[in-house]
Amino acid sequence: MPDIDTLMQTVGRAARDASRYMAAATTARKNAALTELARLVRDRRDAIREANAADLTAARAAGLKESFVDRLAVTDAVIETMALGCEQIALLPDPIGEIKDMHPQASGIVVGKMRVPLGVLGIIYEARPNVTIDAAALAIKSGNAAILRGGSEAANTNACLGELVALALESADLPAKAIQVAPTVDRAFVGAMIVATDYIDVIIPRGGKSLIARLQNDARVPMIHHLDGICHTYVDAECDLDMAVSVSDNAKTQRTSPCNAMETLLVHAAVADVFLPRIGAVFAAKNVEMRADERALTILTASGLTCVPATEEDWETEYNAPIISIAVVDSLDAAIEHINRHGSGHTDAIITTNRPASDRFLREVDSGSVMVNCSTRLADGFVYGLGAEIGISTGKLHARGPVGLEGLTSLKYVVLGHGEGRH
Amino acid sequence: MPDIDTLMQTVGRAARDASRYMAAATTARKNAALTELARLVRDRRDAIREANAADLTAARAAGLKESFVDRLAVTDAVIETMALGCEQIALLPDPIGEIKDMHPQASGIVVGKMRVPLGVLGIIYEARPNVTIDAAALAIKSGNAAILRGGSEAANTNACLGELVALALESADLPAKAIQVAPTVDRAFVGAMIVATDYIDVIIPRGGKSLIARLQNDARVPMIHHLDGICHTYVDAECDLDMAVSVSDNAKTQRTSPCNAMETLLVHAAVADVFLPRIGAVFAAKNVEMRADERALTILTASGLTCVPATEEDWETEYNAPIISIAVVDSLDAAIEHINRHGSGHTDAIITTNRPASDRFLREVDSGSVMVNCSTRLADGFVYGLGAEIGISTGKLHARGPVGLEGLTSLKYVVLGHGEGRH
Repeated sequence: MPDIDTLMQTVGRAARDASRYMAAATTARKNAALTELARLVRDRRDAIREANAADLTAARAAGLKESFVDRLAVTDAVIETMALGCEQIALLPDPIGEIKDMHPQASGIVVGKMRVPLGVLGIIYEARPNVTIDAAALAIKSGNAAILRGGSEAANTNACLGELVALALESADLPAKAIQVAPTVDRAFVGAMIVATDYIDVIIPRGGKSLIARLQNDARVPMIHHLDGICHTYVDAECDLDMAVSVSDNAKTQRTSPCNAMETLLVHAAVADVFLPRIGAVFAAKNVEMRADERALTILTASGLTCVPATEEDWETEYNAPIISIAVVDSLDAAIEHINRHGSGHTDAIITTNRPASDRFLREVDSGSVMVNCSTRLADGFVYGLGAEIGISTGKLHARGPVGLEGLTSLKYVVLGHGEGRH
Repeated sequence: MPDIDTLMQTVGRAARDASRYMAAATTARKNAALTELARLVRDRRDAIREANAADLTAARAAGLKESFVDRLAVTDAVIETMALGCEQIALLPDPIGEIKDMHPQASGIVVGKMRVPLGVLGIIYEARPNVTIDAAALAIKSGNAAILRGGSEAANTNACLGELVALALESADLPAKAIQVAPTVDRAFVGAMIVATDYIDVIIPRGGKSLIARLQNDARVPMIHHLDGICHTYVDAECDLDMAVSVSDNAKTQRTSPCNAMETLLVHAAVADVFLPRIGAVFAAKNVEMRADERALTILTASGLTCVPATEEDWETEYNAPIISIAVVDSLDAAIEHINRHGSGHTDAIITTNRPASDRFLREVDSGSVMVNCSTRLADGFVYGLGAEIGISTGKLHARGPVGLEGLTSLKYVVLGHGEGRH
């Protein structure tokens, strides 16, 4: 086996070369590859399941937790979802090549922008092998090449899926090396990817916070990344209280583990006495642990509900669990201040009937998604109509919030002249 | 003097706090600050020149080159240009708060995007003190806070200009700390800025390649940066040869030092015999040194022109000088391949009358600006109609090519609901 740097160079050069072809590929060809990939995923399910069985056996032998093994498993349902995903992405409009905003300038030239792929994506992810197909499909449609580095525990499954992607690309006369599964499970390859500025244009990590934080510290390649999901719902003084209860309930309890689930509920003092006992009863009935500031604690306890005092740490904790922190605030300003100070720039919502309040909340809360009168759980590429999602960005450059095909592209300037020079 | 980390924290916190106010500031207030800044720059010219004189004296005493001292000098003309710049930026449309692409989704929510500031800009630059005012004006208009770290040789001038910016902000009821000149000339402050991920959202370095390369290696904060300007002009087989001569001449000789000047001329073999002697005579008359590949050398020499053989290094060299590398290529493909391999993603032009050729060039050349039938010297924010320019990006994420006000903003998702939740 060649050393890691040599491997990275080999894979990187092949990706860079392939990326030129992908950038110029016609929509028809990219869609043909996606449709063929869907067919292959369904057609070769036995091979996929066989490779996956080897991974599952090794994972169980290594004593990995059953929840981890669950994520690793490629069931018939997962296979069908992967295939459907490819077909859906084939149906999306091709973002590449769009030319817009062409305006004539004083010098006589006409200047506008063209949407182009980023080049080579480096996608680093953990257990779920379906990401291999999802990420490959998004990269193909957006005209990018990609290097996919999945979890080592899924190595057999990912290698098998990678072969199907290569077959699908070849069947459409696209370069097989456009999508490469990392050729080694050595962790050092991740380290090599995130500094490979010559070969990789953007790193997109998908995984837990510890993975992301580590990568962020060491990466030289720009990243589109997702850190915390500390999402807030702020119940304003003027609002529909029934809506406030149902939306807060949904944001917290519809599912508690996703990053867009609410972690902190802020309530305006003017409605706290009425609203908190109602939502508190809902949470209590659903076994949601409540951690409250002093005023919220007093109100909740007075109405016979059990809750504990929140600590400073609670305001900056992503529980991903049936736990919620609750605070009473005296004003919209205080709510915005709390969110901008303690939040993670993910998704935050206001429940209000007051237009000036919602306008200020939308403008001043500095998050990827800002919402009025709906559940933070709706922050999602599919729900937003993007058709697909590579992840949710909590960064502020390039792409914020759910990242779809467009987030895998950028705009270059197109200039049309008639012999003009600078004078 | 507190240590560097403490200084960075103090400056960073103040910037972060001020950035909230700047993000919410009205257009009228931001414009009032800019107009007042223009007035102050003109009104306090004596104080500015006095501070500048101290810097100039120190620079000469330190034995710095006269070309460097020239860049440091704030003449009356520089003062007027700074003031005019503020007034022009005040006249530009405010990019912040624009809401677009609001579309209803299946769930009932309406989803679109709002343009918002990036937050806190960290701008690192070298000799020219006018950047202090230019960068401050762009940051104010785009609703950002900024930390400005100019060259240590301009410390007195920059401090004086920073005071005027603070006065202008205060006069418009905006936070004086929104724009801060770095409180120390210690180089370690630059090192602190580029890792201050809590306080700075983007680093924008303006300076030579060695500065940028060093920052790129150490930065943890994302950067909008400019590396090389290895710009190409490709003269296609089918083209207006008079135009090819005048555009190539302009691209190389109108000024040779800017980053958008042409460094490499590629000529299709079908027109090389006719075109090269013509452009060669122009370059020879203007004392441009020609470094040619074998075929170009043969043609140029045969027509009595002096040129030297190009080495491999020439294809990847930004001369910023009256030197040009010249190669003959056999096809459009070879030209695109040469540019994508050796270029720097800055600005590249094709001279052609053939529509399929220009279409392919525009799509397949992977640069911030791709041009048809005009001079690469036109790659500039003002020429493109952006009204102002913080720099030119050769990166592929967020912003490519000339970066104006819009490059200092990003888009967040705005979601309007009526009580919707996830099901």
